[in-house]
Amino acid sequence: MITLNLSLPDTSYPIHIGQHILGNAELLLPYLKQKKAVIISNTTVAPLYLAPLKAALEQHGVSILTVTLPDGEDFKTWETLNLIFDALLNNKCERSTTLIALGGGVIGDMVGFAAACYQRGVPFIQVPTTLLSQVDSSVGGKTAINHPQGKNMIGAFYQPKVVIADMMLLDTLPERELSAGLAEVIKYGLLGDAGFISWLEEHMAALRAKDKTVLAEAVRRCCAMKADIVSQDERESGVRALLNLGHTFGHAIEAGLGFGTWLHGEAVAGGMMLAAEASRQLGYLNDSDVSRIEALLHAAGLPTVSPNLGYEAWLEHMSHDKKVSDGAIRFVLMRELGHAIVAALPEPVLHATLHSRFIAK
Amino acid sequence: MITLNLSLPDTSYPIHIGQHILGNAELLLPYLKQKKAVIISNTTVAPLYLAPLKAALEQHGVSILTVTLPDGEDFKTWETLNLIFDALLNNKCERSTTLIALGGGVIGDMVGFAAACYQRGVPFIQVPTTLLSQVDSSVGGKTAINHPQGKNMIGAFYQPKVVIADMMLLDTLPERELSAGLAEVIKYGLLGDAGFISWLEEHMAALRAKDKTVLAEAVRRCCAMKADIVSQDERESGVRALLNLGHTFGHAIEAGLGFGTWLHGEAVAGGMMLAAEASRQLGYLNDSDVSRIEALLHAAGLPTVSPNLGYEAWLEHMSHDKKVSDGAIRFVLMRELGHAIVAALPEPVLHATLHSRFIAK
Ligand SMILES: NC(=O)c1ccc[n+]([C@@H]2O[C@H](COP(=O)([O-])OP(=O)(O)OC[C@H]3O[C@@H](n4cnc5c(N)ncnc54)[C@H](O)[C@@H]3O)[C@@H](O)[C@H]2O)c1
Ligand SMILES: NC(=O)c1ccc[n+]([C@@H]2O[C@H](COP(=O)([O-])OP(=O)(O)OC[C@H]3O[C@@H](n4cnc5c(N)ncnc54)[C@H](O)[C@@H]3O)[C@@H](O)[C@H]2O)c1
Ligand SMILES: [Zn+2]
Ligand SMILES: [Zn+2]
Repeated sequence: MITLNLSLPDTSYPIHIGQHILGNAELLLPYLKQKKAVIISNTTVAPLYLAPLKAALEQHGVSILTVTLPDGEDFKTWETLNLIFDALLNNKCERSTTLIALGGGVIGDMVGFAAACYQRGVPFIQVPTTLLSQVDSSVGGKTAINHPQGKNMIGAFYQPKVVIADMMLLDTLPERELSAGLAEVIKYGLLGDAGFISWLEEHMAALRAKDKTVLAEAVRRCCAMKADIVSQDERESGVRALLNLGHTFGHAIEAGLGFGTWLHGEAVAGGMMLAAEASRQLGYLNDSDVSRIEALLHAAGLPTVSPNLGYEAWLEHMSHDKKVSDGAIRFVLMRELGHAIVAALPEPVLHATLHSRFIAK
Repeated sequence: MITLNLSLPDTSYPIHIGQHILGNAELLLPYLKQKKAVIISNTTVAPLYLAPLKAALEQHGVSILTVTLPDGEDFKTWETLNLIFDALLNNKCERSTTLIALGGGVIGDMVGFAAACYQRGVPFIQVPTTLLSQVDSSVGGKTAINHPQGKNMIGAFYQPKVVIADMMLLDTLPERELSAGLAEVIKYGLLGDAGFISWLEEHMAALRAKDKTVLAEAVRRCCAMKADIVSQDERESGVRALLNLGHTFGHAIEAGLGFGTWLHGEAVAGGMMLAAEASRQLGYLNDSDVSRIEALLHAAGLPTVSPNLGYEAWLEHMSHDKKVSDGAIRFVLMRELGHAIVAALPEPVLHATLHSRFIAK
């Protein structure tokens, strides 16, 4: 097991990365304010991993309430959030009751937001069960639910007390979901670490074969970069925006096709490809950089061609994006491979990008 | 105009108290990040005060969107909150758009919570229009909505950028609402300032006659106490709990009768009377202290006898209260007049209090 630490002005917390650590209650116990916790999971993950986690905590005298939510991005809504609040209130949960999110990014984001709001804030713990949530969503304290008009529009910055990333849980993860997680992994390379891009090119086969040691190393490198960025800019007023590489386009894909049609990671892959193309048109990347990104995404089992939403629809969906500032859409682009920047994209370049070979005909 | 300042570790903001200051856009302009703001009010307050505020800001080139919500505690719900989110998204409001709450505590609490959650946080301004919201809810950053199972159960700590309390707005406030506000005013005397109790006894007639100078002095003293307490304990882990004097009983009254039957301030008045009786039974207050509180509440036009919810129902409603900690209900009591403390109440004393002359037969 490797432990990283995320330090912020008001708090700091450990990120444990390893194998067979789900059943290690010692990692959680220091963060329970009372001997009561609520494990919140979904109908897919609960049958697989709830019992061992629950049993481990109960052995230490912790009384456990469980809440099992419907599975899917479609359920990342206020209605589902209310199921959590109902359960907490029905069971008289108090300000010192800890919520434990056991699942992927949907569960993590939703449970984090529930913890932020319930009685104006209760402690919570992230136990991410997808690669995407292990490398990205469980770390850094962004929590949210979707609104019919936009993804993650309602939320809070609210940090967990501890993150437990157990590689063994990825054994049951469908291949498509693993690839979606690899999109965010690749994102870290593209935005800030050219050496990591090479490492990924070398280890992509092992990652897709779920080699636990290689997976743990990838998760460690991603979490270390994320912890570093978030510690500099918790509230995304500066450098943290770089983590949104591919996400402005990606969110438009998710919203344009309807949430859940493309997985978040797939949409981010399509979006990163468009960000790469826009960067090439601005003269930041050359043809071979773009081909390298295309090949890496392809090797990860990810799409490189985005759906043709229609230019107006692209603009409409992107204008809802949180990165809009005073009317101009700001994008995360690549100044070079492994070095992202935030910049406003001139309309003609945006137009050409959205009519490039990376958009379906 | 008098200006107080509330200082917190992460932020600080002014509280302006005066007459005819609603139309003074200069007080708001420094806090608008972009020349766009959303004034959120309700069907009662908007016809009275929205136009002058809107016009004042528009004169300075600020584009104003307005949202008018249904009026009442019954609407302090997720559904109403969503009307705010819908309007913000329909109008493509950004992270730098400021929300302005124009109304009483219901509007202030709800707009504050909307500001806390919309895109994980946008700036907001409090323009409280009831006495209660001027002396209490607009200051200190507690925001919330109700859940069917409990008041203010879902919310956030989120501070405004500035508070504008204009005494002239109280001219249209119904007498019953003014009295409800006086309950919170009296609360400040009872919990921390015996001299203020005497001042209130002396000036109660002027307050009820809406003498603006006297009202401003009362608001100033209350806000100064609140700012002092909140600056010591923003998240209510200690001394801030004293501001809940009368509220554990009060919330049970509100929930027991159905939200909105008794006004919040009326319920707090009933609750403070019960807290006084419990304090007397513990030997903290004497008979004449209790009579003095009773007379002051009476002079303010407030109830001193609470409804008979039935002992079991009282317990049930109070156990949902946020001040529950590891199963024992902690109450704010008076150690002496003008000096509140937090203490667990022995069951027999609670029982006797809830069968005293301050409960309706
Ligand atoms: N908060 C952040 O900083 C942040 C960052 C990136 C993404 N996100 C959010 O994360 C969400 C996507 O997360 P995700 O990709 O984990 O999706 P997800 O949570 O929907 O999980 C994907 C699927 O895999 C299933 N699953 C989870 N763990 C499993 C396991 N171990 N074995 C078998 N099946 C398993 C889930 O039930 C689900 O069906 C999006 O809502 C996105 O907005 C948030
Ligand atoms: N956040 C906090 O710290 C805090 C503290 C105390 C109370 N509260 C909350 O505040 C709420 C009660 O606030 P309230 O008493 O202001 O109630 P309110 O907001 O419902 O206002 C009372 C009534 O007066 C009307 N009104 C408001 N201003 C008026 C004016 N100038 N002229 C005429 N009518 C006017 C309103 O439309 C409403 O009908 C409760 O929900 C309570 O939980 C919050
Ligand atoms: Zn992402
Ligand atoms: Zn109150």
